[in-house]
Amino acid sequence: MTTDFSESTATTAVIDSLQETPDQRLKEVLSSLVTHLHAFIRESEPTQQEWERGIAFLTDVGHMCDEQRQEFILLSDVLGVSMLVDTINNRKPVEATQSTVLGPFHVVDSPPRALGADIALTGDAPRCVVQGRIRSVDGQALPGSVIDVWQADDAGYYDIQLPDEVPPLNLRGLFTADDHGDFWFRTIEPRHYPIPDDGPVGNLLRATNRHPNRPAHIHFIVGAVGHSPVTTHLFIASSPYLDDDTVFGVKASLVRAVRTVDDPALAEHYEVQNPFGLIEFDVVLDPVDEPGSDL
Amino acid sequence: MTTDFSESTATTAVIDSLQETPDQRLKEVLSSLVTHLHAFIRESEPTQQEWERGIAFLTDVGHMCDEQRQEFILLSDVLGVSMLVDTINNRKPVEATQSTVLGPFHVVDSPPRALGADIALTGDAPRCVVQGRIRSVDGQALPGSVIDVWQADDAGYYDIQLPDEVPPLNLRGLFTADDHGDFWFRTIEPRHYPIPDDGPVGNLLRATNRHPNRPAHIHFIVGAVGHSPVTTHLFIASSPYLDDDTVFGVKASLVRAVRTVDDPALAEHYEVQNPFGLIEFDVVLDPVDEPGSDL
Repeated sequence: MTTDFSESTATTAVIDSLQETPDQRLKEVLSSLVTHLHAFIRESEPTQQEWERGIAFLTDVGHMCDEQRQEFILLSDVLGVSMLVDTINNRKPVEATQSTVLGPFHVVDSPPRALGADIALTGDAPRCVVQGRIRSVDGQALPGSVIDVWQADDAGYYDIQLPDEVPPLNLRGLFTADDHGDFWFRTIEPRHYPIPDDGPVGNLLRATNRHPNRPAHIHFIVGAVGHSPVTTHLFIASSPYLDDDTVFGVKASLVRAVRTVDDPALAEHYEVQNPFGLIEFDVVLDPVDEPGSDL
Repeated sequence: MTTDFSESTATTAVIDSLQETPDQRLKEVLSSLVTHLHAFIRESEPTQQEWERGIAFLTDVGHMCDEQRQEFILLSDVLGVSMLVDTINNRKPVEATQSTVLGPFHVVDSPPRALGADIALTGDAPRCVVQGRIRSVDGQALPGSVIDVWQADDAGYYDIQLPDEVPPLNLRGLFTADDHGDFWFRTIEPRHYPIPDDGPVGNLLRATNRHPNRPAHIHFIVGAVGHSPVTTHLFIASSPYLDDDTVFGVKASLVRAVRTVDDPALAEHYEVQNPFGLIEFDVVLDPVDEPGSDL
């Protein structure tokens, strides 16, 4: 049999060619990819020159990738794909704390620190307090929960971006909630910052009149026995770019104000200057289904 | 306004972010890309690990690209995208000779040769004759048409793949049709051959139990005054892989038998051994619309 390629047979022909794929999941994903990739071509009808430009763009993205830089992840980020994958993989009850993307800066293990520790190892910027309670969706507190925290500084840089300027593990901490499920620590307010925009993805942002910025946020991974861990951010309500995070990471339920507290006794308790900023961020975890619980 | 990313708002949010794109065509193409890329993610629901595998695959494809090797084009080829783009950009009346992909081997100018020339510059394999007439869709012959031809040898290699073994411009020729619109030349039968499969695209073919081969073919670009040129192949009917060309390039109307001719006088005329193989390939071109012809 001779095949006869045409616009109407194209997609079926390619999907048919995948029929002998031994890994059924690979076959499923590739067939879906071909279907939607062809639908994109049919709808946009790229000229030969536009197709060549697309090939050249992808090639540039590939050439930008090395051990330090992952330009394809940046591309996935600015097209909302990373967040879509994250959200699909972290469907939770509405009461549970929602996830957002891990990001590229969780590359070192956060150091265990005592509750109340100051994770800002340098500088004299005013310290604020972050506190919250870890609970299950039924409201029960989760003592002994583990809270992994990392963030940019007040200029928008993570420690690993400033190896000669700040001590290692600056603005990182691994905390264990107390008997009430509570945690608290001192830090400085993070600043918004741009994703790396000196490559092809930056060119794409400029060509679409988009800025490269993410709103100010503190990263969290919170885990507790019997519950699904959540990877998320606390977003600072006063930050610019909450409405147009270049990676689409913002969920409204994750935005928190920095409340100014004027209470000398409380300031002394937390070992911060009075008045001070207080950010409250309770985290609600979804129980893992027990084996057989659906029976 | 704080955005609130969710599965249901994701695609709109990304398309909204493209609204200030100055180039309207870029905005249109990117919006279409985001729509279909998100549809693929929603349908396939990749795990985080599968997404990472996709990122790693694209990165490997990028790293395989250099001045000699274009792995993203190979990826486009084996997913049928190159042929779909080619076919969309070359819609023709059904009577006209249909297009197929240019391929990567038209990188040197074909040498002008006299009608009847032998384009096989080496070896003693039996010569066959390729002949045809260039016509317009209304049947009128097109004298002076230009016929650019290139092909692999009887082992499946192009001249530029064998720089130390064959003279430059082996199996290439640029012919001008005679007063009847006719052309003819001598050559050897090309062999089927694999696309380069030592990279990530080859790994993809193996993972899907696909072979890397293209059926035997001779490339043509044919042009005539007042007509759209056509870039196409003549496929050899006896070749394997006509039904499963790895780049989906086969259109049934482009397949031709090599007919054995036992005619000493004709063999002498063509300066080939008797009997000889004859391939007939008429090419029908679509007139370019004259400016104002629709008025």
